[in-house]
Amino acid sequence: MSRNSIVRYGSAARWSDMVVHHHTAYWVEVAARQEAGTLDQARQILEQIDATLVELGSDRERLLTVLVYLADPADLPQLNEAWDAWVPAGHAPVRACVGALLPPPCRVEMVITAAVD
Amino acid sequence: MSRNSIVRYGSAARWSDMVVHHHTAYWVEVAARQEAGTLDQARQILEQIDATLVELGSDRERLLTVLVYLADPADLPQLNEAWDAWVPAGHAPVRACVGALLPPPCRVEMVITAAVD
Amino acid sequence: MSRNSIVRYGSAARWSDMVVHHHTAYWVEVAARQEAGTLDQARQILEQIDATLVELGSDRERLLTVLVYLADPADLPQLNEAWDAWVPAGHAPVRACVGALLPPPCRVEMVITAAVD
Repeated sequence: MSRNSIVRYGSAARWSDMVVHHHTAYWVEVAARQEAGTLDQARQILEQIDATLVELGSDRERLLTVLVYLADPADLPQLNEAWDAWVPAGHAPVRACVGALLPPPCRVEMVITAAVD
Repeated sequence: MSRNSIVRYGSAARWSDMVVHHHTAYWVEVAARQEAGTLDQARQILEQIDATLVELGSDRERLLTVLVYLADPADLPQLNEAWDAWVPAGHAPVRACVGALLPPPCRVEMVITAAVD
Repeated sequence: MSRNSIVRYGSAARWSDMVVHHHTAYWVEVAARQEAGTLDQARQILEQIDATLVELGSDRERLLTVLVYLADPADLPQLNEAWDAWVPAGHAPVRACVGALLPPPCRVEMVITAAVD
């Protein structure tokens, strides 16, 4: 990859699933199955992040930032339950978590950046 | 531009209109004319993004991420109508879209990153 | 620091206080003392940003972006009062500010990026 090239993964008409530029990957995740509650949606998203990291040749320890939107900020304990079981000790990303208006039944959305060699 | 320099465009007292660092441009757009509805505000913002990209020597196909805030997430169809007519096929950025509390009459706000050579 | 290395500051179990990658620092701030109102919380956060910038060997003039979440967007004047007294003339970052649901008594949260040599 040349220094300034852009690599897009899963480029559909409306958005790309992921964009890599200058050793940084950017993407967004919502749960594939949204009939479930916040805990399950958060777990799904974290599994989806793992799958994306494999595709990138990266891993959980190379995450830079995760910005979490919760449909209800009172669901923070459920998010943390999924998160704490998943986040790699000593290599946690920066994390922000705020409540936002998400289209039901979506309960969680995450915006992610990771380092890519 | 040296590797670590920062270039600021439109630096007013409170914020800069755009900042470029390390081959990445960062900026925020709200519609210049906010008396209009969501569809028209979205179209204005996308035109404003085009103008900014020209100033940067970049273009729509070099967008990395667009984070969209909608005053009412029920306006997603209007956003998509403007977006789908504008986004370049095969080169779409990553996109997130959530509802947030925007100061009326603002209906749409976008946070953008693009690659710059 | 090698080009693609990641440096984490304050890595706790749940998150890192700050992550630096590729000459860019990423972090999140909420006020340490949240019993205060929006103006005081905003001032605290800006002081905390200064402290972080010192730790990074950076400074206010090297900020790239600040994304501000307010619990009540009607508090924008208080945010601006703190901000305008703090932001460096001619070197302001890009700034976005939207209302989001923050866990009480948190009134302000900021997501920050800065350039690091």
